[in-house]
Amino acid sequence: MNLTVFTGSANPALADAVAKRLGLEAGRLILKRFLDTELNVQLHDSVRGHDVYLIQPTSPPVDQHLMELLFMADACRRAGAARITAVIPYFGYARQDRRASGREAVGGRIVADLIKSAGIERVVAIDLHTTSLEGFFATTLEHLTALSVLTQAVQPHLSPDSVILSPDLGGVKLAERYALMLQRPLAVVHKIRISGEEVQVRGIVGDVRGRSAVVVDDMISTGGTIEAAVQAFLAGGGAPEIVVVASHGLLVGPAGERLRGLPIKALFVTDSVSVPKNLSLPIERVSIAPLLAEAITRLHNNQSMSDLIAHR
Amino acid sequence: MNLTVFTGSANPALADAVAKRLGLEAGRLILKRFLDTELNVQLHDSVRGHDVYLIQPTSPPVDQHLMELLFMADACRRAGAARITAVIPYFGYARQDRRASGREAVGGRIVADLIKSAGIERVVAIDLHTTSLEGFFATTLEHLTALSVLTQAVQPHLSPDSVILSPDLGGVKLAERYALMLQRPLAVVHKIRISGEEVQVRGIVGDVRGRSAVVVDDMISTGGTIEAAVQAFLAGGGAPEIVVVASHGLLVGPAGERLRGLPIKALFVTDSVSVPKNLSLPIERVSIAPLLAEAITRLHNNQSMSDLIAHR
Amino acid sequence: MNLTVFTGSANPALADAVAKRLGLEAGRLILKRFLDTELNVQLHDSVRGHDVYLIQPTSPPVDQHLMELLFMADACRRAGAARITAVIPYFGYARQDRRASGREAVGGRIVADLIKSAGIERVVAIDLHTTSLEGFFATTLEHLTALSVLTQAVQPHLSPDSVILSPDLGGVKLAERYALMLQRPLAVVHKIRISGEEVQVRGIVGDVRGRSAVVVDDMISTGGTIEAAVQAFLAGGGAPEIVVVASHGLLVGPAGERLRGLPIKALFVTDSVSVPKNLSLPIERVSIAPLLAEAITRLHNNQSMSDLIAHR
Amino acid sequence: MNLTVFTGSANPALADAVAKRLGLEAGRLILKRFLDTELNVQLHDSVRGHDVYLIQPTSPPVDQHLMELLFMADACRRAGAARITAVIPYFGYARQDRRASGREAVGGRIVADLIKSAGIERVVAIDLHTTSLEGFFATTLEHLTALSVLTQAVQPHLSPDSVILSPDLGGVKLAERYALMLQRPLAVVHKIRISGEEVQVRGIVGDVRGRSAVVVDDMISTGGTIEAAVQAFLAGGGAPEIVVVASHGLLVGPAGERLRGLPIKALFVTDSVSVPKNLSLPIERVSIAPLLAEAITRLHNNQSMSDLIAHR
Amino acid sequence: MNLTVFTGSANPALADAVAKRLGLEAGRLILKRFLDTELNVQLHDSVRGHDVYLIQPTSPPVDQHLMELLFMADACRRAGAARITAVIPYFGYARQDRRASGREAVGGRIVADLIKSAGIERVVAIDLHTTSLEGFFATTLEHLTALSVLTQAVQPHLSPDSVILSPDLGGVKLAERYALMLQRPLAVVHKIRISGEEVQVRGIVGDVRGRSAVVVDDMISTGGTIEAAVQAFLAGGGAPEIVVVASHGLLVGPAGERLRGLPIKALFVTDSVSVPKNLSLPIERVSIAPLLAEAITRLHNNQSMSDLIAHR
Amino acid sequence: MNLTVFTGSANPALADAVAKRLGLEAGRLILKRFLDTELNVQLHDSVRGHDVYLIQPTSPPVDQHLMELLFMADACRRAGAARITAVIPYFGYARQDRRASGREAVGGRIVADLIKSAGIERVVAIDLHTTSLEGFFATTLEHLTALSVLTQAVQPHLSPDSVILSPDLGGVKLAERYALMLQRPLAVVHKIRISGEEVQVRGIVGDVRGRSAVVVDDMISTGGTIEAAVQAFLAGGGAPEIVVVASHGLLVGPAGERLRGLPIKALFVTDSVSVPKNLSLPIERVSIAPLLAEAITRLHNNQSMSDLIAHR
Repeated sequence: MNLTVFTGSANPALADAVAKRLGLEAGRLILKRFLDTELNVQLHDSVRGHDVYLIQPTSPPVDQHLMELLFMADACRRAGAARITAVIPYFGYARQDRRASGREAVGGRIVADLIKSAGIERVVAIDLHTTSLEGFFATTLEHLTALSVLTQAVQPHLSPDSVILSPDLGGVKLAERYALMLQRPLAVVHKIRISGEEVQVRGIVGDVRGRSAVVVDDMISTGGTIEAAVQAFLAGGGAPEIVVVASHGLLVGPAGERLRGLPIKALFVTDSVSVPKNLSLPIERVSIAPLLAEAITRLHNNQSMSDLIAHR
Repeated sequence: MNLTVFTGSANPALADAVAKRLGLEAGRLILKRFLDTELNVQLHDSVRGHDVYLIQPTSPPVDQHLMELLFMADACRRAGAARITAVIPYFGYARQDRRASGREAVGGRIVADLIKSAGIERVVAIDLHTTSLEGFFATTLEHLTALSVLTQAVQPHLSPDSVILSPDLGGVKLAERYALMLQRPLAVVHKIRISGEEVQVRGIVGDVRGRSAVVVDDMISTGGTIEAAVQAFLAGGGAPEIVVVASHGLLVGPAGERLRGLPIKALFVTDSVSVPKNLSLPIERVSIAPLLAEAITRLHNNQSMSDLIAHR
Repeated sequence: MNLTVFTGSANPALADAVAKRLGLEAGRLILKRFLDTELNVQLHDSVRGHDVYLIQPTSPPVDQHLMELLFMADACRRAGAARITAVIPYFGYARQDRRASGREAVGGRIVADLIKSAGIERVVAIDLHTTSLEGFFATTLEHLTALSVLTQAVQPHLSPDSVILSPDLGGVKLAERYALMLQRPLAVVHKIRISGEEVQVRGIVGDVRGRSAVVVDDMISTGGTIEAAVQAFLAGGGAPEIVVVASHGLLVGPAGERLRGLPIKALFVTDSVSVPKNLSLPIERVSIAPLLAEAITRLHNNQSMSDLIAHR
Repeated sequence: MNLTVFTGSANPALADAVAKRLGLEAGRLILKRFLDTELNVQLHDSVRGHDVYLIQPTSPPVDQHLMELLFMADACRRAGAARITAVIPYFGYARQDRRASGREAVGGRIVADLIKSAGIERVVAIDLHTTSLEGFFATTLEHLTALSVLTQAVQPHLSPDSVILSPDLGGVKLAERYALMLQRPLAVVHKIRISGEEVQVRGIVGDVRGRSAVVVDDMISTGGTIEAAVQAFLAGGGAPEIVVVASHGLLVGPAGERLRGLPIKALFVTDSVSVPKNLSLPIERVSIAPLLAEAITRLHNNQSMSDLIAHR
Repeated sequence: MNLTVFTGSANPALADAVAKRLGLEAGRLILKRFLDTELNVQLHDSVRGHDVYLIQPTSPPVDQHLMELLFMADACRRAGAARITAVIPYFGYARQDRRASGREAVGGRIVADLIKSAGIERVVAIDLHTTSLEGFFATTLEHLTALSVLTQAVQPHLSPDSVILSPDLGGVKLAERYALMLQRPLAVVHKIRISGEEVQVRGIVGDVRGRSAVVVDDMISTGGTIEAAVQAFLAGGGAPEIVVVASHGLLVGPAGERLRGLPIKALFVTDSVSVPKNLSLPIERVSIAPLLAEAITRLHNNQSMSDLIAHR
Repeated sequence: MNLTVFTGSANPALADAVAKRLGLEAGRLILKRFLDTELNVQLHDSVRGHDVYLIQPTSPPVDQHLMELLFMADACRRAGAARITAVIPYFGYARQDRRASGREAVGGRIVADLIKSAGIERVVAIDLHTTSLEGFFATTLEHLTALSVLTQAVQPHLSPDSVILSPDLGGVKLAERYALMLQRPLAVVHKIRISGEEVQVRGIVGDVRGRSAVVVDDMISTGGTIEAAVQAFLAGGGAPEIVVVASHGLLVGPAGERLRGLPIKALFVTDSVSVPKNLSLPIERVSIAPLLAEAITRLHNNQSMSDLIAHR
């Protein structure tokens, strides 16, 4: 069974890097947007009987990137692909895992259903915001983690006195894993939700006085969570020497401005999503292309994925 | 069973007009886009046990408008709506009804599947580009037509000598219906497809010399089809007095510029989609709000829809 | 994976020809009708793990032939076939692609659903009446065309002055392809639908005076369309030297009588359906067995189908 | 919710009788067969929001009658019927409940799947050959019995010395119910299957010498089973005074000839299927129209069906 | 539409209390276990057209209670119930929301699929261990909370100096809600997972010295979590005056022994599951029957559920 | 494709015997029951791309064994197994094939649906109580028979004068097959159902006076049917020398006591289910491991199964 990799428009650089690792070129296809914004997808090469991997993070603009993924899958299915796997390094709408405050849509489940409805048989994702998203799918969601590659990259930048700082209680499990892998103590920012939108920082759990921090999170969106955590850390007596680590660096809206105002020495993110340019931030991009290439190789060759899987 | 109407962001003015006709206000809901472009939908009022109608053309930007529709449906479904009907006055991706040139996605079917997957039980659409789209749905697609309201609006503007002009052979069935309803002769622009994209006008079938024209089509997107038809008409000796009629006036990209260059006296479209502003075109918008209100009333009250249905 | 071909009772001669081309014999099975008309299907040979192709046009009597196809598929599925492809050279009910005049069934979609429900994973069809039937299926419908083999067969019979004549506006796209392949000018019979059933010929578009004609259509059922077209052609000054070409020659009911009354020199059809005998018509049957054998070979070996696909 | 009854072409007399009982007229629809045998179904009246009952035995010719049922259901579904119930007084293919001898299709399950695929939500059937057919459906199959009406009709014709005779071991459960209701002793013809098709009568279990017989079965198809039973009965010393009772009198093929050769005083069947004419048999038709009307009334009004249900 | 409530064997006392609140008696049915452990379910009364609520926590023994629920649903569905809602006060397998450590089954999703497959259209649950379980269902899961009734019951037992104690970081969101409703400060036991099974207490976050505690959790299974939390609390200088509050008191295995060894003044749980007897614990059972009765009333009457829903 | 065999807890000895025959060891997995009875399944080895066979009779306790099967299937599916076959030597709930007496659940269909919902693609079963269970599945149920191995084992124990005795009319078809294979005459116990539960023996059909008997049935549950048959046999003058043969020896409840009271010389059953110990019965267990190993080998290698299939 031939192996073919396609990329949508969300992160072609990553897809190309993955393909190169696999000794391939990304399959040729045309993703055309008509002037009325309708999408047209045409595959250039035959995929009949192929094992196809569609690499597409559903990063902003999320709806277009998601729809591209569905159209690519439909084109592959109708062209006779033997198996279609979506590789979604960043999985949009993962935070919508339940109706948090009333009569809401559950975005994560909608996306899971659309993916299934387009003929995608399995999904590869990295460091999902909600781990139980796995249960939103009837079949396989391979939930990989970038922690190994991120901690390897961060290691040389660690001060001897640094603590791992989780920016909220929800992130403690992830922070614990960083603490274990980097062999550093753990601290947590304690926040409390006052009302729907309003959150109040109550202080920091753990010993941070005079220490530097490695703030860890699964993703950085507008930078608000990181900003509040760093401010709490400094208010708690922490030293103004911060390293930030996150799997997904969306860095949308005010993120650049917010983070530039903080004493951040280095900001480690993967290349799961395309990076906005000109942010004037000390961004260190760690590539997950080797990880994805390894995962695709194993899936294609029916080898065990266990040691690549995120366990939390 | 209570009747509730919701609108997405695609055409709230139309939805409000429909609701007003029904003696209602459109249901309150929040359609929020986060800075990372993710959508969040929350219904303000209870819809438990209600008969819900979601009014949303999937006009440009088509992916966002489609996704809004799916999120609204999911929110209604989870909130206990008894029945969910999507009213899609303009149905995007309707032209993708088959693989025209090889390994393509069939967009029309993808959309049909997504709609079903979100719990929408039936669809109301108006003057679909592809009539056989009905078979893309396992259940009901009510295919209405705006021809009655459009021909009523056009009637007073007809010159005694005008012909109904179909801009291509594919539009002849529609033009015949206009010709019948307006009691005017019919002419057709004969084009031939040279290759994938290239089309050549061969001439005009029918007597147009010295006459004025009513050019009819189901939709106007970039205006290219209308422009070519008018040019062929004039080249064939037609008089420079043109009325254009179409159900859907998307008018994207170069449409304004193209049409401003033609001797168009009046351009009749419905309000199925929001109109771009400042086009400096003699646009006459004919409202389909009464038609949609009537359709919703009958669907809600289980009355026959037969005389509203498009038959081609 | 072994390749097995079965035939129902609709066109065993074609299936045998296809099998022979493939270097096989058609698989042995028993299709028994009990005296109460119930069907019983038993496969003689094992198909466990086989790649099975069921060759069965759904020609008249359409319901029995369709049901045979479903029973064969069910027997294969339960006997462990790895993949089941229906090869339906003539696809009955293809004209029922929408509700044309009210509260109708959409036969084309019903058939698509039945085919899916019986475990058939993909369909091969030839020159479908409705091209958008492809969207009636969630997965693959390979829409092949017999135009190459038909035009090759017709070529030697062409007079130097002949025109390609489309019997109605709906058939113009097909006629254009014939005109392009045979390098002949195009003419069209212009008909208009007066009411539900009644159609009136308005004349002929294109230059036919003194010329001979090649009348082309996708199928000939009762011969009425051809008869009207030839009469219009003659009335328009065409020469009484007609060649008729169609992919599917059902030739039911009054077809024989109607066509015998016309100056038809030759009538080219494929062997997609069994031919009624003793029609006393100058029928030239062009075999699609090589085309189907080629398609099956490629599908079985996962090769590209692109150049066999009908593009309209 | 309005109640509407439609009939296919299989047994309009029964449907009319049921409708009359319900104080209705059968809904108007057009069931057209084109010359190429394709079916077209159009409903004359609106069924939007109606509770629809489609009365159609799948008697010979079984495929056409089944397809009519599916087309009627699709037309009702697309026209907005609230609920569609198929009333199938005689259920064809009910004997194909498993693969009896190898690589066969399981006709009963195919039919169940087709019925579901056409949007029919529940089925009413009478005296099914295979009682476990109920499990072939995911939802409700209401399995009614005509035993009450049949035994009431037979009662006056019973000789004081008659025995209830089951023509084979498979029919003993049914015969026991007749014996109980008619308060008569039971006898059974003991047959043994020698090979696939060949069956040998071994004798009669029970005391039949000098007695007359009431031979009971669920259906009479070609009459072979009844003929063999009567011959065994006479060979066993039974008196040549036979009454035959069966729910379904298909009476196909040689049935007339076979039964005319036997000393049958009366042959009781219901009107579940249309009766072939001119059989010269002493047929007494017992109408199930009241039973079906009662069942429809209860289903429509949500009343208990328990005492109408067949329990075996 | 009639309202009917059935109970399985898991918690008939609760179901009876709910029914009584609703002014009904629980519907009569037979839940029989044969000697070979097979279950047989028969409904005594007609449910045709009824709105049915099946009250059954999937408490231990979880498989039997789950299977009872599925059989009850199937019996209702086949008997013509109009709508089937499962009221599952305690939802077993809710902790299996993902593959935590490799090649595991995702129990929560399996259960969701089984529930759907049995024809249950919506589910009511209380204080789920995993809130995102909602996304495991395509349709509605109404996630209610017992916090109001529990805090009302606990209020009079609160010492002026008591703190709300979350036994681990995962429970902080729940504890925050208790703290807010009871207007008490919050403390958290900080544990860290050493390996798969092994967990180490690191200390307590928050001021507990000399204070009494209200330990809160969603459920108490074997009592191990509570025991560790209380020990940490005492080790941290807390006063030996403990109140424990949890929505679900399974109290299996060593729970009785463990909790009896602790200075627990009162143990508040709801009656979501049947209570083991003779535990010699100061259990205060707070009934959720009024809550469930209110929820059923609203669902049945199509009223808003918003203020009953758990928001976390 | 690798072949892997897993066993649940129902009959690991059989699974090991099958695996050994196949030259394999059963795959390693952990089936853990928590103290709250919840099941956790973890596979030890990779099954990615494997052809997996799950050997698990759904013998008592049926619900737990069934749930284990579903969890194993889900774990395999999520771990990337290529194909999952359930080998269910004894199929619980097979007797619930219809609603026998009113508003019941149809257990057989529920189980079929659960099996499908867990991703199991095909099922292998042995000597099902209801042969038409095959139609409860949309895809393949391979219905094997242990008659060959049982008759081979019984042959040496046959007295020259023994008759094959069917304990009721429902078992005659099975008994006929035994009679044919063992070349012995046939006798049948004639029972009649008085009411729901009550059954009355009417006598024995066939010549049994002075003969010994081989009582045959598909399964022995509580032994009641066998006991009644032997008593009738003795009352009819049969000799007190009985051999009992059945495919499945559940032997639950009073079975031991009942059978010990009868003059049973030998009791032949297969090892389809685990045998209760210390029954003090002359049980001869005939292994179906070779049969299952042969079936798995053929399924895995895509060879014909025909001669292993049960035909009744």
